[in-house]
Amino acid sequence: MGRVTSLDDLPLRSDLRGQKPYGAPQAPLPVALNVNENTHPVPGEVADDILDSISLALRDVNRYPDREFTELREGFAEYLGHGLTRDQIWAANGSNEVLQHVLQAFAGPGRTAFGFGPTYSMYPLLTRGTGAAWVAGTRAHDYTLTPAGAAQQVADAAPDVVFLCAPNNPTGTPLGLDVIAAVYDATDGIVVVDEAYFEFAPRDERSALTLLPGRERLVVSRTMSKAFAFAGARVGYLAADPALIDALRLVRLPYHLSALTQAAASAALRHAPVMLGMVDEIVAQRDRLAATLDALGYEPHESWTNFVLFGGVGDPAETWQQLYDRGILIRDVGIPHHLRVTAGTEDETTAFLEALASIDSAA
Amino acid sequence: MGRVTSLDDLPLRSDLRGQKPYGAPQAPLPVALNVNENTHPVPGEVADDILDSISLALRDVNRYPDREFTELREGFAEYLGHGLTRDQIWAANGSNEVLQHVLQAFAGPGRTAFGFGPTYSMYPLLTRGTGAAWVAGTRAHDYTLTPAGAAQQVADAAPDVVFLCAPNNPTGTPLGLDVIAAVYDATDGIVVVDEAYFEFAPRDERSALTLLPGRERLVVSRTMSKAFAFAGARVGYLAADPALIDALRLVRLPYHLSALTQAAASAALRHAPVMLGMVDEIVAQRDRLAATLDALGYEPHESWTNFVLFGGVGDPAETWQQLYDRGILIRDVGIPHHLRVTAGTEDETTAFLEALASIDSAA
Repeated sequence: MGRVTSLDDLPLRSDLRGQKPYGAPQAPLPVALNVNENTHPVPGEVADDILDSISLALRDVNRYPDREFTELREGFAEYLGHGLTRDQIWAANGSNEVLQHVLQAFAGPGRTAFGFGPTYSMYPLLTRGTGAAWVAGTRAHDYTLTPAGAAQQVADAAPDVVFLCAPNNPTGTPLGLDVIAAVYDATDGIVVVDEAYFEFAPRDERSALTLLPGRERLVVSRTMSKAFAFAGARVGYLAADPALIDALRLVRLPYHLSALTQAAASAALRHAPVMLGMVDEIVAQRDRLAATLDALGYEPHESWTNFVLFGGVGDPAETWQQLYDRGILIRDVGIPHHLRVTAGTEDETTAFLEALASIDSAA
Repeated sequence: MGRVTSLDDLPLRSDLRGQKPYGAPQAPLPVALNVNENTHPVPGEVADDILDSISLALRDVNRYPDREFTELREGFAEYLGHGLTRDQIWAANGSNEVLQHVLQAFAGPGRTAFGFGPTYSMYPLLTRGTGAAWVAGTRAHDYTLTPAGAAQQVADAAPDVVFLCAPNNPTGTPLGLDVIAAVYDATDGIVVVDEAYFEFAPRDERSALTLLPGRERLVVSRTMSKAFAFAGARVGYLAADPALIDALRLVRLPYHLSALTQAAASAALRHAPVMLGMVDEIVAQRDRLAATLDALGYEPHESWTNFVLFGGVGDPAETWQQLYDRGILIRDVGIPHHLRVTAGTEDETTAFLEALASIDSAA
């Protein structure tokens, strides 16, 4: 071999030069509470049924899959309820790809997308990846938003796409439907309500799905990665007006969802009550995390998700490393004096809390 | 419900207005020879092993997949041979997504991509989808290219990315390594050799993989959709310099390949000889198609793929419809007086040839 080629030797786009690939560290630690997975495996009875469906799909795997993933869209419509039908449903390989499709159709070069920071770190990356510019709004000190304040910021920014993460990642903060309605009225652009963590909100809480009728620019996205314990299968989806779904058909790659993905997701949806059976247990651990963190002298933020962001950390990088050395992986999301931890099983949560208690790291 | 919303009511990007979604008609006809699938199902013994691997993957499907799909890249490196290692391999959900990653890294807004028409119709769509401009070169009347002529066209166009489909879709035309080398020397851009149909070329034919050493801007892409009978699983891949692979990591979505896809593709690769066992049979049917089409008075073009493009069709739309009415689906690729047909099983090929013989449609 001669000289080793480096990235600088290649005609890479100038806006990509010096960038690093996105992604949390993947380390094989005993307790991984860093990427808000559901740490409970899929129940065996459901896995068996998924496998049966995949076995059927393999018989025709030499053929291209159903480009319209009709059965899967019907499954999502039934799961979501609210009178939704399959022509209001879209899906892709993870909610990141779902959001990418929205941006490709409604943002892209010469346009802008907007979100209230701190929020899901993929929004700006997805936005710039499609050639659009990212505009960051602001939140109150406790990360909440008010209808009037949020609407004013959106009206001032006049973006083409607005992201509202409800509840918000990485802070866990709830978002009222009144804020969503006010933001919608303040823009002519697309409003995406990202409900990736909605299943962890209080049971009587209303989804933004209830706002869809009469709002043809509103999108409500979900994922099977969190409550559904299906992160490895990569399935995100959304509900919106049928015309908006038609727009996404213009930008998707043909056959973007494999026959195996369609079979696995459809089967999992048939077992939604079992798949979601761990949600109450996870919520209990989340609330235990918040109470114990508070007792330890940290400042946990209100969370309607499966994770807790907590402040009062003197040196987050140092605490993160000390936990890592004890076999526990959590997330430094870049907010000063804060760390984020996923609610795991009871044992995992105990392991984290005991390890943290053994470290003197409160500010 | 009130007024129905249309796409025109939404703030769609102006360059998407009036477009139709890409994709061949999906019709449940008895004989489907329209999208160059491998019409032979995956052998049962392989399907069983794939299912076992998926069953293992389902145990951890609540966790995100290996973002680096390390085992799968090792499998592709071993399958391709030529001394390749996993750091020279990339994969995605179908070769379309693989090519999209290349375009996102090296083309995109303000740049151009180039190909010799007629060629794979997704190249311009993928190019424009990433914000780049498409430039079409030309071929001789028999769709061949010469080293000097191809190099001159590329030098004149000065594109950022060049696509060489080898053998070419939708014409089936072989492409010599001398053309690839000449084109590479005529540009400072990325040169993508799309070998989607390479496995159907003569056995002693050399792949563009042999040109990789010392050519850090060269990319050789492949797919499991054709010879591997795996279109439903959506797996494309490529080989290139490790630095070029690093560039693709900057534009991929994190966790773009599901744990189920990784498991299925790795298992299928372990059975490569069995999976490719139908290739000789398909090649025999392709050659039978060409000979019989010639005898029927049509003008089949030389093909090193699993399909045949044939000229001498008086009214392609009419012939297509008459075949459709007889339960046979082939493809009108938009070339005047031409149609394209996939080599199916012996029975499917017979059904097509007998149906065509019953129609008087030669020009």
